[in-house]
Amino acid sequence: MTFREIPDIVVGRLPVYLRALSRMMQEGQSITSSKELGERLGISSAQIRKDLSHFGEFGKQGTGYQIEYLTEQLQRILKVNTEWEVALVGVGDLGHALAHYNGFVNRGFRISALFDADPAKIGTSVGELKVMDAATMVEEIRARGLKVAMLAVPADKAQTVANQLVEAGVKGILNYAPINISTPDGVRVQYIDPVTHLQRMTFYL
Amino acid sequence: MTFREIPDIVVGRLPVYLRALSRMMQEGQSITSSKELGERLGISSAQIRKDLSHFGEFGKQGTGYQIEYLTEQLQRILKVNTEWEVALVGVGDLGHALAHYNGFVNRGFRISALFDADPAKIGTSVGELKVMDAATMVEEIRARGLKVAMLAVPADKAQTVANQLVEAGVKGILNYAPINISTPDGVRVQYIDPVTHLQRMTFYL
Repeated sequence: MTFREIPDIVVGRLPVYLRALSRMMQEGQSITSSKELGERLGISSAQIRKDLSHFGEFGKQGTGYQIEYLTEQLQRILKVNTEWEVALVGVGDLGHALAHYNGFVNRGFRISALFDADPAKIGTSVGELKVMDAATMVEEIRARGLKVAMLAVPADKAQTVANQLVEAGVKGILNYAPINISTPDGVRVQYIDPVTHLQRMTFYL
Repeated sequence: MTFREIPDIVVGRLPVYLRALSRMMQEGQSITSSKELGERLGISSAQIRKDLSHFGEFGKQGTGYQIEYLTEQLQRILKVNTEWEVALVGVGDLGHALAHYNGFVNRGFRISALFDADPAKIGTSVGELKVMDAATMVEEIRARGLKVAMLAVPADKAQTVANQLVEAGVKGILNYAPINISTPDGVRVQYIDPVTHLQRMTFYL
């Protein structure tokens, strides 16, 4: 089965499974079941088994899943068994928070390049990184071969910067700007906009 | 049709439609079509028409949608035609960025209470708000009648704080901690974890 045949919604659940399994491992657990995983995540055990069955056989009827093994397999499937270097564009409040965020560690990502267009920010240090001039971004990203970027610029700059990221060879953009952006086929965009999540909850209130 | 019958995935797309329509309105546009909206969002026009049809008739065949009218209707459906006051728990780097984020304005939400357990932070000002002692959180949230909260605390504190939010009467929690939390029926949780989004993209690389 090729990846194209696997629904993206299934792919979207794998990181959540991986996160829960890593947590169980941290807690000292070594075996789990689709039932236990499902209860932790509020997802049916049948759904979990079905999702995983797209990728192979990871557990045995009656004995459940070896957490370490399943974790390694999911890391391999999601291609986070190695670490991706990530470019972060926009070093405002949010960019700062992302640059300092320790939640990337051991999960496949490391921010390795910061860019901003503001002369007051260029050259300043954020953690161990220096903010680089956005004017050098395409060149730098290409030279370093970065394929993943996070976009934390204002909404009215997002499409322009996204176009530059695509030009630089980036294939995955995590967009924090509250606006939809267009990219060519082969370049994926994911969105993080707290308001869309909040509105999805107030609907039910 | 009651809300229970509408798939949550449909509900999840409404905020994205609303955001795009608001943008069009800002750009001075007054009429759009499912085709145009779909092209902007990378969603099929049939999907958009089907999603909206759950809630009523918002456009006429051939003449499209009045953007202002559809915007108002979506705001009403998502219950963001009034402003929700939101509690923010955890005023670290991310909490600071959220407290300063101007993307909530005119989209139905305003952070009106900040809480942290760190004595060094309690009493300090962030924008126009003072950080309150997390020990007073349940009482404060209840007294103010807040129903929505954002959780920006470390993963190992998230469940405990979530329990307190539920006790205080909160019905919607936007959880930034990279861990699944359990809540009783009637309390919704949405998650923002950049790593799950990044992993969902690297899968395809």
